[in-house]
Amino acid sequence: MDAYSPPAGVGEGAAEVHYRMSMLANVHAVIPAGGAGTRLWPLSRRGHPKFLLDLTGTGRTLLQQTWDRLEPLLGAGNIHVVAGPAHAEAVAAQLPRMPSANLLVEPSPRDSMAAIGLAAAVIEQAHPGAIIGSFAADHVIGDDAAFAAAVTQAVAVAERDLICTIGISPDDPSTAFGYIEAGVPAGIEGAAEARMVKQFVEKPAFEVAVSYLATGTFWWNAGMFVMGAATLLNHLAELQPEMHAGLTTIAEAWDGDERDAALEAHWPNLTKIAIDHAVAEPLSAQGELAMIPGRFDWSDLGDFAALSDLAPHAANDVQFIDAYGFVVPAADRSISVLGIPGVIVVDTGDALLVTTREYAQRVKEIPAAWAARGRDDLV
Amino acid sequence: MDAYSPPAGVGEGAAEVHYRMSMLANVHAVIPAGGAGTRLWPLSRRGHPKFLLDLTGTGRTLLQQTWDRLEPLLGAGNIHVVAGPAHAEAVAAQLPRMPSANLLVEPSPRDSMAAIGLAAAVIEQAHPGAIIGSFAADHVIGDDAAFAAAVTQAVAVAERDLICTIGISPDDPSTAFGYIEAGVPAGIEGAAEARMVKQFVEKPAFEVAVSYLATGTFWWNAGMFVMGAATLLNHLAELQPEMHAGLTTIAEAWDGDERDAALEAHWPNLTKIAIDHAVAEPLSAQGELAMIPGRFDWSDLGDFAALSDLAPHAANDVQFIDAYGFVVPAADRSISVLGIPGVIVVDTGDALLVTTREYAQRVKEIPAAWAARGRDDLV
Repeated sequence: MDAYSPPAGVGEGAAEVHYRMSMLANVHAVIPAGGAGTRLWPLSRRGHPKFLLDLTGTGRTLLQQTWDRLEPLLGAGNIHVVAGPAHAEAVAAQLPRMPSANLLVEPSPRDSMAAIGLAAAVIEQAHPGAIIGSFAADHVIGDDAAFAAAVTQAVAVAERDLICTIGISPDDPSTAFGYIEAGVPAGIEGAAEARMVKQFVEKPAFEVAVSYLATGTFWWNAGMFVMGAATLLNHLAELQPEMHAGLTTIAEAWDGDERDAALEAHWPNLTKIAIDHAVAEPLSAQGELAMIPGRFDWSDLGDFAALSDLAPHAANDVQFIDAYGFVVPAADRSISVLGIPGVIVVDTGDALLVTTREYAQRVKEIPAAWAARGRDDLV
Repeated sequence: MDAYSPPAGVGEGAAEVHYRMSMLANVHAVIPAGGAGTRLWPLSRRGHPKFLLDLTGTGRTLLQQTWDRLEPLLGAGNIHVVAGPAHAEAVAAQLPRMPSANLLVEPSPRDSMAAIGLAAAVIEQAHPGAIIGSFAADHVIGDDAAFAAAVTQAVAVAERDLICTIGISPDDPSTAFGYIEAGVPAGIEGAAEARMVKQFVEKPAFEVAVSYLATGTFWWNAGMFVMGAATLLNHLAELQPEMHAGLTTIAEAWDGDERDAALEAHWPNLTKIAIDHAVAEPLSAQGELAMIPGRFDWSDLGDFAALSDLAPHAANDVQFIDAYGFVVPAADRSISVLGIPGVIVVDTGDALLVTTREYAQRVKEIPAAWAARGRDDLV
């Protein structure tokens, strides 16, 4: 039985898990916990962003669910979180089994390349030859076993010094995601499904997305990358030499007294760029990027439309007449909606949002508008 | 100068007011304060219905505004309110200058004919030959002087033993009101504008309302009737003899120890019928009803669409993006609306309503639906 061929087997045995863990002993997860999730305002705020929230009603926050998915695979000591100073305490409190040294506090947000690059440099220094996987702190994955199977294949790819992404099978021609075009099979042992990536494309227009889906060879980019830390750093040295130099200096100072000074001197100057643009796009053009198809349900909970597809709808304190939609009531307050199909109502202590599903992507404009009116208390 | 011809003079002098007051010394106002105003839920509730609320932001409730309009005209001693037991205390508290004997408590709501008929019988007994005018407790009138002029003309008509209504010039082909078709001039001294009524019609279909407006001879029925108390009672004796008998018995017992016993015995058996159907419609067919055109802005604040036309819009705690509408925020809570034109959001402590202007007339369905779900606390 080849556990790494689709579809991932359910009910796999303890022996296999042990085999996989020993195989993954040198693999470290990097969780950049940075996104504000302003499209989920007013649930998500500056002070308590999306990843710190239990948005799916499971009793575990999105960050904790990410941890729960990775810990059985990699072990608690191999999971690292990169977070801002405002959220460091909450992250540590939510992940009590994570060694405190694994929480990397970035002084300010400088996009995903800086966050993952910092983790790569720090991990490579402590664990030479390590393989790292970057996984978002605020996505939902429906099948942990299938996720584990995809990661295991991606590790086999990364051991060949390729960068490997895990693509998501597109449900619809979404314009909210970038796409990955898969090419020829990569032909790598232990990674039967790996295909070389032809191109990474940014969020497309709707008609373009429709044409992508028609081909069957395009996948959503969920920002999951598995690669040797040294492989990533080597590419960075070539593609973003200044960032590489800055991160190297910071990593060298990381375990000593000079960490803060190095961060202060170099962090603010790092280019703000996503790992997709900095590395994945140029490497896909050079044929140095591969993809494993993710055989699992996935959602980035990117807006209330996505959340409404996943979260249980409140019922008790909600009354719909000639209406349907997604409603988050506040405690001890009823909500009645009359005549608005697809309504979205989110009620919190100090802020109430009323919109419709069609406008879900634009919710981020609202906290911005409040900030512009000086109402930072609502942001 | 004829103060009673249109348009009503502004800035009228003290002498004229005195003349009018002495002319109106025998006129009594009856304010049936019974409507629940369920279309204004959740502002209006069973416990604090529409007429007890300051809906226009003036600092005076609708009932108090009705009082303020009538007191200079008729005097505090000549204003009577018919209310249910649940609201009697609040009515008395809101109208501290009203003699307590002028508050007529009806044991249960039995529609406007019973309420106004009871007041007519009680007033006629105390003040034989009195003229009464019925005025809703929860309407808004824009010009008190023009209102006074219309009432004064209507009193002149009532002195001829006719029932006189005051019609409202229709702003639009509303289907929320009944209509009055005006006929030939009545030719009554002191009532230059009085016309005989050809017919009273119930709330029409939209196309019918459009055809009414095209004629220029249809007016909205706002439920304002001015008439001799005895005139009304005589018609009632003929048109609703059982009700007349019951009301007469109750009125005879009103000032003695038997009031409660008489109410208990007779009130529950009174036919539930509106004064329009009981009296106005049949009398208009017999040519015994006249109308004075009301030369003033008027609103029944019948739903949130009507309220939004009158009340100042909240601004501070409200954010619209690609949206507009009517929003009533609760204290210390912001409201943000994205992408819903004509939205109506009413936020109260325990209930939040979200709808649109098009559905304003159907808001009454919501408290009914909550009641059906056993949530009487929200009704």
